[in-house]
Amino acid sequence: MIPKEVLEIADGIKTMRIRGASLIAKSAAQALRIAAERYSGDASGFKPYITKVANLLLQTRPTAVSLPNAVYYVLNRTLSSSVSEARETAIRSSDEFIRMVDESHRRIMEYGSKLIQDEYVVFTHCHSTAVVDIILQAFREGKRVEVINTETRPLFQGRITLREIAKNGVKVTHVPDSAVRHFIKNANIVIVGADTITSDGYLVNKVGTSHLALAAWEAGIPFYSAAEFIKFSPASLEGGEVVIEFRSASEVLDIYPGGLADELRRLGVEVLNPAFDFTPPELITAFITNLGIIPPQLSVLIIKEMFGFSAGRIQLTVLEELV
Amino acid sequence: MIPKEVLEIADGIKTMRIRGASLIAKSAAQALRIAAERYSGDASGFKPYITKVANLLLQTRPTAVSLPNAVYYVLNRTLSSSVSEARETAIRSSDEFIRMVDESHRRIMEYGSKLIQDEYVVFTHCHSTAVVDIILQAFREGKRVEVINTETRPLFQGRITLREIAKNGVKVTHVPDSAVRHFIKNANIVIVGADTITSDGYLVNKVGTSHLALAAWEAGIPFYSAAEFIKFSPASLEGGEVVIEFRSASEVLDIYPGGLADELRRLGVEVLNPAFDFTPPELITAFITNLGIIPPQLSVLIIKEMFGFSAGRIQLTVLEELV
Amino acid sequence: MIPKEVLEIADGIKTMRIRGASLIAKSAAQALRIAAERYSGDASGFKPYITKVANLLLQTRPTAVSLPNAVYYVLNRTLSSSVSEARETAIRSSDEFIRMVDESHRRIMEYGSKLIQDEYVVFTHCHSTAVVDIILQAFREGKRVEVINTETRPLFQGRITLREIAKNGVKVTHVPDSAVRHFIKNANIVIVGADTITSDGYLVNKVGTSHLALAAWEAGIPFYSAAEFIKFSPASLEGGEVVIEFRSASEVLDIYPGGLADELRRLGVEVLNPAFDFTPPELITAFITNLGIIPPQLSVLIIKEMFGFSAGRIQLTVLEELV
Amino acid sequence: MIPKEVLEIADGIKTMRIRGASLIAKSAAQALRIAAERYSGDASGFKPYITKVANLLLQTRPTAVSLPNAVYYVLNRTLSSSVSEARETAIRSSDEFIRMVDESHRRIMEYGSKLIQDEYVVFTHCHSTAVVDIILQAFREGKRVEVINTETRPLFQGRITLREIAKNGVKVTHVPDSAVRHFIKNANIVIVGADTITSDGYLVNKVGTSHLALAAWEAGIPFYSAAEFIKFSPASLEGGEVVIEFRSASEVLDIYPGGLADELRRLGVEVLNPAFDFTPPELITAFITNLGIIPPQLSVLIIKEMFGFSAGRIQLTVLEELV
Amino acid sequence: MIPKEVLEIADGIKTMRIRGASLIAKSAAQALRIAAERYSGDASGFKPYITKVANLLLQTRPTAVSLPNAVYYVLNRTLSSSVSEARETAIRSSDEFIRMVDESHRRIMEYGSKLIQDEYVVFTHCHSTAVVDIILQAFREGKRVEVINTETRPLFQGRITLREIAKNGVKVTHVPDSAVRHFIKNANIVIVGADTITSDGYLVNKVGTSHLALAAWEAGIPFYSAAEFIKFSPASLEGGEVVIEFRSASEVLDIYPGGLADELRRLGVEVLNPAFDFTPPELITAFITNLGIIPPQLSVLIIKEMFGFSAGRIQLTVLEELV
Amino acid sequence: MIPKEVLEIADGIKTMRIRGASLIAKSAAQALRIAAERYSGDASGFKPYITKVANLLLQTRPTAVSLPNAVYYVLNRTLSSSVSEARETAIRSSDEFIRMVDESHRRIMEYGSKLIQDEYVVFTHCHSTAVVDIILQAFREGKRVEVINTETRPLFQGRITLREIAKNGVKVTHVPDSAVRHFIKNANIVIVGADTITSDGYLVNKVGTSHLALAAWEAGIPFYSAAEFIKFSPASLEGGEVVIEFRSASEVLDIYPGGLADELRRLGVEVLNPAFDFTPPELITAFITNLGIIPPQLSVLIIKEMFGFSAGRIQLTVLEELV
Repeated sequence: MIPKEVLEIADGIKTMRIRGASLIAKSAAQALRIAAERYSGDASGFKPYITKVANLLLQTRPTAVSLPNAVYYVLNRTLSSSVSEARETAIRSSDEFIRMVDESHRRIMEYGSKLIQDEYVVFTHCHSTAVVDIILQAFREGKRVEVINTETRPLFQGRITLREIAKNGVKVTHVPDSAVRHFIKNANIVIVGADTITSDGYLVNKVGTSHLALAAWEAGIPFYSAAEFIKFSPASLEGGEVVIEFRSASEVLDIYPGGLADELRRLGVEVLNPAFDFTPPELITAFITNLGIIPPQLSVLIIKEMFGFSAGRIQLTVLEELV
Repeated sequence: MIPKEVLEIADGIKTMRIRGASLIAKSAAQALRIAAERYSGDASGFKPYITKVANLLLQTRPTAVSLPNAVYYVLNRTLSSSVSEARETAIRSSDEFIRMVDESHRRIMEYGSKLIQDEYVVFTHCHSTAVVDIILQAFREGKRVEVINTETRPLFQGRITLREIAKNGVKVTHVPDSAVRHFIKNANIVIVGADTITSDGYLVNKVGTSHLALAAWEAGIPFYSAAEFIKFSPASLEGGEVVIEFRSASEVLDIYPGGLADELRRLGVEVLNPAFDFTPPELITAFITNLGIIPPQLSVLIIKEMFGFSAGRIQLTVLEELV
Repeated sequence: MIPKEVLEIADGIKTMRIRGASLIAKSAAQALRIAAERYSGDASGFKPYITKVANLLLQTRPTAVSLPNAVYYVLNRTLSSSVSEARETAIRSSDEFIRMVDESHRRIMEYGSKLIQDEYVVFTHCHSTAVVDIILQAFREGKRVEVINTETRPLFQGRITLREIAKNGVKVTHVPDSAVRHFIKNANIVIVGADTITSDGYLVNKVGTSHLALAAWEAGIPFYSAAEFIKFSPASLEGGEVVIEFRSASEVLDIYPGGLADELRRLGVEVLNPAFDFTPPELITAFITNLGIIPPQLSVLIIKEMFGFSAGRIQLTVLEELV
Repeated sequence: MIPKEVLEIADGIKTMRIRGASLIAKSAAQALRIAAERYSGDASGFKPYITKVANLLLQTRPTAVSLPNAVYYVLNRTLSSSVSEARETAIRSSDEFIRMVDESHRRIMEYGSKLIQDEYVVFTHCHSTAVVDIILQAFREGKRVEVINTETRPLFQGRITLREIAKNGVKVTHVPDSAVRHFIKNANIVIVGADTITSDGYLVNKVGTSHLALAAWEAGIPFYSAAEFIKFSPASLEGGEVVIEFRSASEVLDIYPGGLADELRRLGVEVLNPAFDFTPPELITAFITNLGIIPPQLSVLIIKEMFGFSAGRIQLTVLEELV
Repeated sequence: MIPKEVLEIADGIKTMRIRGASLIAKSAAQALRIAAERYSGDASGFKPYITKVANLLLQTRPTAVSLPNAVYYVLNRTLSSSVSEARETAIRSSDEFIRMVDESHRRIMEYGSKLIQDEYVVFTHCHSTAVVDIILQAFREGKRVEVINTETRPLFQGRITLREIAKNGVKVTHVPDSAVRHFIKNANIVIVGADTITSDGYLVNKVGTSHLALAAWEAGIPFYSAAEFIKFSPASLEGGEVVIEFRSASEVLDIYPGGLADELRRLGVEVLNPAFDFTPPELITAFITNLGIIPPQLSVLIIKEMFGFSAGRIQLTVLEELV
Repeated sequence: MIPKEVLEIADGIKTMRIRGASLIAKSAAQALRIAAERYSGDASGFKPYITKVANLLLQTRPTAVSLPNAVYYVLNRTLSSSVSEARETAIRSSDEFIRMVDESHRRIMEYGSKLIQDEYVVFTHCHSTAVVDIILQAFREGKRVEVINTETRPLFQGRITLREIAKNGVKVTHVPDSAVRHFIKNANIVIVGADTITSDGYLVNKVGTSHLALAAWEAGIPFYSAAEFIKFSPASLEGGEVVIEFRSASEVLDIYPGGLADELRRLGVEVLNPAFDFTPPELITAFITNLGIIPPQLSVLIIKEMFGFSAGRIQLTVLEELV
């Protein structure tokens, strides 16, 4: 029997009540911890039981990268321990994982803020808690920092960033997405978040990120991505493809005058709305990670240090075969 | 006495009732023609008279490039002709200029459509009559052409392009500005319009154009700008700077929910909204002009052939000194 | 009645008895001269007559660029002269054209040889009379010059170059096409011929030329193309597309052992064999022309100086409309 | 006394009866295993004995990289174990090495096939078993895959690839080497094999590979090399140079008509025929290895994980000093 | 008889009493004017006479480009006029040339100063009167301009620039040559002078110029060269090579402590000291010329407009053949 | 009580009697060894005592990278050992560190010399013992090697290199800093030393190094930096900034004629004199390290292998907190 709290967490992830890569990852680890603690069967049944819980969690949001990273982190350690220690291992590695996520966030904030010098102008795109925290940390350290941020059409997440930073007293200049190349010369540094990072150093992030990276590269402005270890994809090491989500045309059309939107639909105009794009490693100065500031080509090292070389292999396997 | 029709044209340009680079240029030439025809003074007074009319026209919209190109085209020829032929020259060169603008449009449509091969996907940005006509011409010639176009925030002029093309039965895919780099790989060719072109081959056009050019260059897609001769700036040949117009923050904020817009204004957030940006010649494959498909470095040749080397010099002079 | 010698020349071009860009161009001009000289009708009939001859010549090899350049050079001048002078103009401009082709060859040989310094190694591809003459001229001037040349699969035209140069005592190193990038570092300069040159500075030449240009660019070796004015395409100025000829698969397969070639054909393997490829202007240092050493962006200037801006326009028109 | 089977294997490698990097490596490991199993002397004599066998094997083909990788893999482990365990270690590590080579091949096939999406066109050069297997694996998974491959002058190994793929029902287009840049735009991905890979990420492979990489880079097509761990050179980590083999001019001339070949030889024309060339890391997207898809800069990591940092040091040492 | 004043001018140029490209050019034209005015022979003797004078002048400093440009400007016009008008033509074209040089200087100062915006930092190298005048003109127009300049080892000509600018009250920062790349980011624009410009857009200027251009290009800073028309080389259009002067090792060694300089000489150390280097067109934004701001690829246009296409041809000819 | 010899070493480092990265590092390790050996207190007091000594040493030259690398290498190991073993650990790890520095130097000399082939010309800048030893090693191995080196204004350290190499009989060509790009084409390889290397692969070295790297990259010449492991900065992994030292203007002005220097000072001219600059990883072929020839992106691996991931973290901490 799977405990009720575990089912609630799974449901929270599925319905997006629990959202944000870190929170999802920590909640999943927490669910595994609870499941282990509440287990009252005999030792030999524990591994099949925890595998079932893992499966349940994995099916809630199959495309996010932080969720399987959490689940496999705990599962690998648990399945490879002896029968008598499996339950203890599950509990301990859940705790360890959660601690690492929190520490990772603190370190990234600390390392990232060192990259911002006094009187720097930081350019960012979309909304990333890590980036907001880096900027505010630099500001709290007394640096005179300014920010340029984009609207980030179609969902205008740039407005969240804008408000969070501005209300702390940091000067922000807000520009349309199409003006990125025009204003990039005013910036000293670009820092964005990260959705997923592949083993060959590609950054998958909010659509428009690759624009900003290309313009920064052309202008000679360093481009950083703040990337917790849970964003790195072990599966990509084995050729696992990252699929770009295409969202509803309505997100684009909803702000169009009604008559026009209707006419466009009637004319059969296709409105495409990809959520993410790929930024190649040659446009990225470095990732800001919990292990330090590393060039994009070293993504594999993060995967190896945090998950082990075989993590991707396991992720691409049918779970039941592992027990 | 300046004829009433001339004053009406000047007023029309000033109040933007008359708009679009071609129409402004042709109307200004027409105004000079009318002024010359109606002139009834003696021959020696004609040159000061027509200079005064030219001055009147120039002051209506000082920043557009097609207006002074029209005025100086007629004025140079008139002032350098003999006293007795000056009036005739003014009439004849006005007619000639208007004919050339029309012919220029036809030729660009014709040359540009040849660049579009069967089954080509054309990427465009903002709204340009020349580009729309090029695409529809290729379509009428039986080529299966598709179009990708951007929203073009903040004024959404991409919607005009979208409607004009879609209602003629051409398939259009509409994407947010931030998705340009993501979709550029689906295109075979980029064609945009032109606001102003400088002597060293820079294209000044709707903000976001330089983005599109940079992404096309990275992806190896040819990038063309359809540019009537009236868009080339003789003044730039002599170092005359092209100033980018910054438009009202309201154009950006007007679609934001009221509470947020108010809060942002209260927080003193700066919203910048440049109308244009610069695309450097190394990102441009060629301009489509009335003299043919030419590389951007040959802008000077267009200026020389259409206006003469000294046109810029005269444009930067106080008019009265010329008589 | 079209004179018999004219018909013979037309036939010679058609059946490729007359071949090579220069010879075709000069023969066509010669044919027009003969046609004009033999004309015995009244003055008013001359223009339709010569237009008919022009048409005949143009249809012999529709894709070569030197042929229409010759025909239109003479035709434009003839049609725009007065009725009474048309015949004389046709004769004079034929002579002028032939003289210019010869002089063009001499000048290119002279200018090109100056680019070769003592102890230079010249890399070339395929076979070009102009390039062979440039190299031999430099050799005759006492420079110690060496040559690297490619096989130029599938027709092995590199062997012709190899023999022509080697038998004059110049040291030649012969390499497979796939070894170009390996040996480019041993060269000081690349010189190739030209088939056609477009108004935006693209070089159309024997397939493999763009390879050599790309490798030379990467290695920092200057890349020149020896280009008589008859190779520049006025039609391209107006968007006229240059179509790449695909030749028979047999040219590739003929040297394969019989059993294998048969098996491949049975398996339905497609063997593609394009005759030419495009080299973009950014990979070309300069063209060696009769007007001097010019950067590729100045192709338009050659077209303008040698043929006039409207030459392309006329080439793309139905001839009969011109009379 | 060295066992007869060991001598036969050594002879097989030397006379190229045993060929192909994997087979050579596995045979060498097998020879060491046999030598260890048959050893009947006392424990203290084992290390000198196995060193002697290693030396014998190394001298059979001094330039291949997979042979020393096999020998040193076994030897390092054996020499660093205690006297009493040395023989067991030799047997065990030989088995381990052979298993790893086989597993490496399976993993590369599996990871590589994931890089091929449905309807992809794969461009390849020369002949590589790994590449053929990757393509056929993708095809078996139901993807509609097409292939473009080169002749690969002068030995035409492209024909082997062509036949192996075509006879499995995959559509192949076959092109001359000089047409690579012309056709690269038709491809979605390039995958080639690998002869040797250096510690700074250079790929040494069949001459023409660097061409293909350069053209792919220019066109924005990803370029992969399928590289078993036995292809990575530990010696290069310590500055050991990879020497390019130059093969006989006859390989080029043999298909020339007799008279011409003779004349060329008489004229003293030099025909150069390098077997390999260098592709620099900036032209390589990633290597497909048994540890996953890794950027070329991580070659050192493969060397470290599979052989240890000091492997190169030992390879460059006189063997006898090691005992 | 050649007039005494003419001989004095020739001597002044030869002994470098008359120096600086403009002064040399104007003095040579002045000498030709005097020679023409003083001529008292009959009309038929004038052309041989003036050719002799021209020859005398050309031999004074064979490598400077402004001297032959002056001489041939006058000579071409004179020789191609009728016998009766030759003397008048020589006088008139001398005056015209001198006027053009002066006007050229004024225009370049005027156009160049427009490129400098308020609060701009200008980076320059070596010493150029045109650049100093451009900067001071911008300063006089009220712009707050600052300058970074190099020492320009070995002759430290940067000190001349430094003093001329600083004593007018403009802030100058002075840096060693090796620090160019470090400081380039602080500049908004680079402006240097020009020694010679070739037909394919290469700038020959003080050694170190190409460094500055390369660093500016990498950093995205525009790079201009102020270039009077007399610096453009018609001879280069025909392949005439520009030879770089190597100056005495003493210029480098003179500031070394005596013992060291002696020891180095004794050790046979070679000290190389080239006066100029080549900057390729792709590193140059534009030339500032009397005809306007033009991209480097348009050098040919300046040559054509100011001297005619055949100027180079004549320059490379033996003068006597021209009469 | 801190032993007198330790205080003397600290003083020697502070007053720059002890200089050069290796010597400083080894002396600091030696000081820690002496301090440990002389310690006579009880075991529990050793860690605070050795921390105090470490602090003393660290304060002598806070900006050098090799000093803290030495101190932390010993300190980390000591503090993490048990109370009873701390003193032994300090002694052992000091010895180990010194041995590693010496071995590192030998290996770099050995690996680097393998990169120099017979008849190679090596370009270098400033003075680096490692580079001089690499060149002399290659020379001793019988390779015909030549050297080009720069003056290295303002302190002319190039003269030291020049003398050390020339007096061993190696041919050296000495050139001004501004002539680097002019002569780079004559070189086959560039090898420079290293002051500090950051975790993202940037090389901090004598100002002018980045010039040389940029020119080498443009010309396709490989660029190496000989870098002992003590030059790699663990602190940079965590965002620790490398600050460039600006030295006195006198170093530049001292060789200026007195009147001029005074005048410049009076005019308030600023003379900037940075000691180092940054060379980005994309301009660096590889580092020559004791672990082998590695691409710049693998700096992190050196830090990890030699110091551990957390070394930087500890370096940025207040020492007392560690006990």
